[in-house]
Amino acid sequence: MASSFYPPQRTLMGPGPSDVSARVLGALSRPTIGHLDPLFVTLMDEIKVLLQYAFQTTNELTLPVSAPGSAGMEACFVNLLSPGDKVIVCQNGVFGGRMKENVERCGATAIMVEDTWGEPVSVDKVIAAFDEHPDTCVLAFVHAETSTGVRSDAAALCKLATERNALSIVDAVTSLGGIELLVDEWGADAVYSGTQKCLSCVPGVSPVTFSPRAVERINNRGHKVQSWFLDMQLVMGYWGGSSKRAYHHTAPVNALYALHESLVMLQEEGLEAAHRRHRHNHLALVAGLEAMGLSMVVAPEYRLPQLNLVNIPEGVDDAALRSTLLEEFDLEIGAGLGALAGKAWRIGLMGFASSERNVITCLNALEAVLLRQHAAINPGKALNAAQAVLKG
Amino acid sequence: MASSFYPPQRTLMGPGPSDVSARVLGALSRPTIGHLDPLFVTLMDEIKVLLQYAFQTTNELTLPVSAPGSAGMEACFVNLLSPGDKVIVCQNGVFGGRMKENVERCGATAIMVEDTWGEPVSVDKVIAAFDEHPDTCVLAFVHAETSTGVRSDAAALCKLATERNALSIVDAVTSLGGIELLVDEWGADAVYSGTQKCLSCVPGVSPVTFSPRAVERINNRGHKVQSWFLDMQLVMGYWGGSSKRAYHHTAPVNALYALHESLVMLQEEGLEAAHRRHRHNHLALVAGLEAMGLSMVVAPEYRLPQLNLVNIPEGVDDAALRSTLLEEFDLEIGAGLGALAGKAWRIGLMGFASSERNVITCLNALEAVLLRQHAAINPGKALNAAQAVLKG
Repeated sequence: MASSFYPPQRTLMGPGPSDVSARVLGALSRPTIGHLDPLFVTLMDEIKVLLQYAFQTTNELTLPVSAPGSAGMEACFVNLLSPGDKVIVCQNGVFGGRMKENVERCGATAIMVEDTWGEPVSVDKVIAAFDEHPDTCVLAFVHAETSTGVRSDAAALCKLATERNALSIVDAVTSLGGIELLVDEWGADAVYSGTQKCLSCVPGVSPVTFSPRAVERINNRGHKVQSWFLDMQLVMGYWGGSSKRAYHHTAPVNALYALHESLVMLQEEGLEAAHRRHRHNHLALVAGLEAMGLSMVVAPEYRLPQLNLVNIPEGVDDAALRSTLLEEFDLEIGAGLGALAGKAWRIGLMGFASSERNVITCLNALEAVLLRQHAAINPGKALNAAQAVLKG
Repeated sequence: MASSFYPPQRTLMGPGPSDVSARVLGALSRPTIGHLDPLFVTLMDEIKVLLQYAFQTTNELTLPVSAPGSAGMEACFVNLLSPGDKVIVCQNGVFGGRMKENVERCGATAIMVEDTWGEPVSVDKVIAAFDEHPDTCVLAFVHAETSTGVRSDAAALCKLATERNALSIVDAVTSLGGIELLVDEWGADAVYSGTQKCLSCVPGVSPVTFSPRAVERINNRGHKVQSWFLDMQLVMGYWGGSSKRAYHHTAPVNALYALHESLVMLQEEGLEAAHRRHRHNHLALVAGLEAMGLSMVVAPEYRLPQLNLVNIPEGVDDAALRSTLLEEFDLEIGAGLGALAGKAWRIGLMGFASSERNVITCLNALEAVLLRQHAAINPGKALNAAQAVLKG
């Protein structure tokens, strides 16, 4: 017979999920009500407004897709693409590759613009790709690459798409709530995110927003979207502005209580303050890591404050170190993905997990385990360096 | 500024979500851990085994899709169908129509077998459809129609599909945990369900199971599944039997805590006992409703004990009555859908909500509001009739 599962209290400093606050977990476990209950409809309206704030947009079609970020990604592609369309896909990490998969499964063609993992998307290469393929109808890129910890220039890329009469699809899974994301000012057309990164909500829901240009493309499609579940014209009937909601699917009621609470918390703190906090803790962590003798993968100007890629020193047993952190310190940090597997750690400081306490916890634990592995580091320096930044 | 949302404590006797127990809500709000944490992987393995019990199957590919039941439905269709395939779709309510949408969005052809809403699927009509279309490769039908409260003969339909060398796709959204569902004994090939019906878990996750025949079809596909998110070959890499889990998407960690707890509760009670409880409370509710002078939509032999369709008496204001039940009694019952909109109520006695207390609560509240609307009913009879069954 199976019995109830009691998870330990981890400190989640990987690439997500990030630590979920007691306040959000409390909201999650409030009594379930019906998905068409008038009070729930009111909650849905509030979530839309709170998401508009988080995305810095007035887009009417702004809502949480009832599934994880990869379904949010798919929602953007299947609603905007038709077979035969040309899409420029920028790849500088894992998630550009997933975009390519999405494009091809829509029967469209992906024009790949590739950059080294750990570097941002080259705007010049994208310009060249548009020059070569002027009939491109969508430009897709990742704002904050979760596999490499790199920020690309979303403002420039969205502007370029608009100039070339293409729509932009922007992966903001890791950026939302952690760094500046100005959907309207940048003119981004379809943006998807996740709840389990800088919003520090439980995983399973994907906020998306579509510009009026994107909605026009959706409304003028000549054929049905290949996914019934992700068909935005149907989803709009449930989430839409009218007081009469059409049943489409059963919303994940409790997950939306939690999302609402996390967005209320973001609004209370304020976006700018949240960004400052992420940056502040990031600088302290980097100061500590560098004082310890470790080096960062990404150049300072492209680093994501919420996801820190650290080169694994020679001779360190990556898997053993992460296991020890998890088992002895209840601390999760992320492994490298794809080209960076075994070469880098991904240390998240996302949302509620971006705290002074977590910076100190992580530096202490990492130093202890590295010393046990006889790694060539400078012991006893990291905390002072980090504290200097935190107090600065 | 938005503020925290505090839902009322409703009694959920609609078509789902059903009442979620404090035990499941407690599990839901336990601390989030990583989706690749070894402890979480152990939990995933337990969920698979518990779902195999609930589905009465040894199917290796048995897991919860990380999205609502309509995505579970889509997962079955997109993984098993190819463009040009012929699919017999049985429609005797709303969800057969949704199956048709899924078939067509896969580029396949739906051969519709239609029955009156409120009646079961006619096996004879399906035989005739197979005779007319011997090259049919899938038979799709709804076991327990959530829009009409009707049970169809899943055993006979699955057997027929096997005889005709077709795979069966079975909608068991409302049946799982409430009535007999024998996936292996019946030879069902792809079955999807929901968490928010007779499992009384929060909505948002869809248990599915695929037979070895179905897995063989998936593994021998000549082209990629049109959905990346729902591609079972990729999902298997994360949920599969090997100890090395490949990252596909971020699982809805806390929702799976809750699903696990609800399945542990089902195992503790035992499937047969759960079915008996559903039937017992159903018979009491029907006795009460009929003593009150109300009539049921569905003939006794096809009635779902977990979802009771009641004809709305002449002259009753349906919307006003349901609003009053919700606002004054915190009681949700379901409206009719599609052909039954305005004509019937859907009273759920699902999972944790299938209780003697709820039978009495519902009869009392319904009688009070019907009397206020001067409906022609027999007052003062319902409780005694229900109690006689409950104590019998």
